[in-house]
Amino acid sequence: MPEVTSGAALAPLLLQAVERAGLALEDGDVFVLAQKIVSKAEGRQVKLVDVVPSARALELAAVTGKDARMVELILRESREVLRAKRGVIIVEHRLGFVMASAGIDQSNVPYAEGECALLLPENPQASATRLRDALREATGHDVAVVINDSFGRAWRNGVTGTAIGVAGIPALVDMRGRSDREGRALQVTEIAAADEVAAAASLVMGQADESVPAVLVRGFPYARREASVDELIRARAEDLFR
Amino acid sequence: MPEVTSGAALAPLLLQAVERAGLALEDGDVFVLAQKIVSKAEGRQVKLVDVVPSARALELAAVTGKDARMVELILRESREVLRAKRGVIIVEHRLGFVMASAGIDQSNVPYAEGECALLLPENPQASATRLRDALREATGHDVAVVINDSFGRAWRNGVTGTAIGVAGIPALVDMRGRSDREGRALQVTEIAAADEVAAAASLVMGQADESVPAVLVRGFPYARREASVDELIRARAEDLFR
Repeated sequence: MPEVTSGAALAPLLLQAVERAGLALEDGDVFVLAQKIVSKAEGRQVKLVDVVPSARALELAAVTGKDARMVELILRESREVLRAKRGVIIVEHRLGFVMASAGIDQSNVPYAEGECALLLPENPQASATRLRDALREATGHDVAVVINDSFGRAWRNGVTGTAIGVAGIPALVDMRGRSDREGRALQVTEIAAADEVAAAASLVMGQADESVPAVLVRGFPYARREASVDELIRARAEDLFR
Repeated sequence: MPEVTSGAALAPLLLQAVERAGLALEDGDVFVLAQKIVSKAEGRQVKLVDVVPSARALELAAVTGKDARMVELILRESREVLRAKRGVIIVEHRLGFVMASAGIDQSNVPYAEGECALLLPENPQASATRLRDALREATGHDVAVVINDSFGRAWRNGVTGTAIGVAGIPALVDMRGRSDREGRALQVTEIAAADEVAAAASLVMGQADESVPAVLVRGFPYARREASVDELIRARAEDLFR
């Protein structure tokens, strides 16, 4: 795909890439998109020179060693700071995701207008739904869309691809009522299928090579349905680790 | 694959399945195995009738509503209980994994000798390494092995496939020193590649259908090297959520 810039329509870019690859879309195909291209298309770059850090941002910047303007953006994008220490700020993003730095990235953002940060899409769930609708309108096919970002985990090193927007496939697959070969009820009752798709696509995307910002996944194994990424967000009342 | 029983040699079973599928192994192929078949092959079933709960197990059983004998097994397999509430026990497994119920499963375990639980392999890292060696000896190919279990996450609903043993591919891929298209150092510096492979394979395995207990992954995108699942375990000193 070409470099995605602010205002770009992603559906035609994806369909051109599919055509160039000699593929034909099928019902049930899942497009996994890197968060970065969705954010760029939506003009979510912020020039750091325009950001004035609050007192709280200055305080957190001192604790973490981060640029106070970046911290200011993190705070604006968050409901709550869960942890802060040298080099790390873990927040609850305003959309409910618990993640580092509110998903704000300084890499892969063009320098042209001075140093920039790239925020998550305003509403990645809505972005996924809109893109799915546009793809259906253009092709007649019922394709799904997952928007993928790299998340750290509480107790494991490294990041894995994780869904921040899900349209057209279940985010969570409910296995209740299903039983194993001996007829016992399954103990694992919910599978975060959209996160597994995001992780699988991340392997193909890599991290350094933005020339693979979208992956077409064929063969999603669970029944399709209307869904939302909100299914994946653990309710505060059930959160044991805050 | 046929039902795996205690003492089974997994390498020949895997190679027979590959042959039946009409495939030929290649260097760099990755076998992802469900933890259950590795545990079964290693005879890690425990008859609950033989388990005598300790005072602490009885106490935790009262708090959680779980079978005290299951709780006893969880405690024996763990270094520390992080959280316990109705229906949930989160521990640090003796191998360092933070997970629910020490990975002990009651489903998919034959009833024949009374109610059984299935523990994780004694040392899944060693199991992965042994299996990789056996596959190399049998085929001459340098294949990798990942042992996969379903883990919950602190702030997200549902489980995803996660590596508990990794041989022949990096568990963690270090991106430090790599830069993006604008020449900036990447902010995401470590990718939990083995967890992404495990998650991808989980999609194919599903949960209910144990007839897909192993998945052959071709095209792992990062350079192979000797590695261990320990790379993925966050050091206690760096754990912000305990």
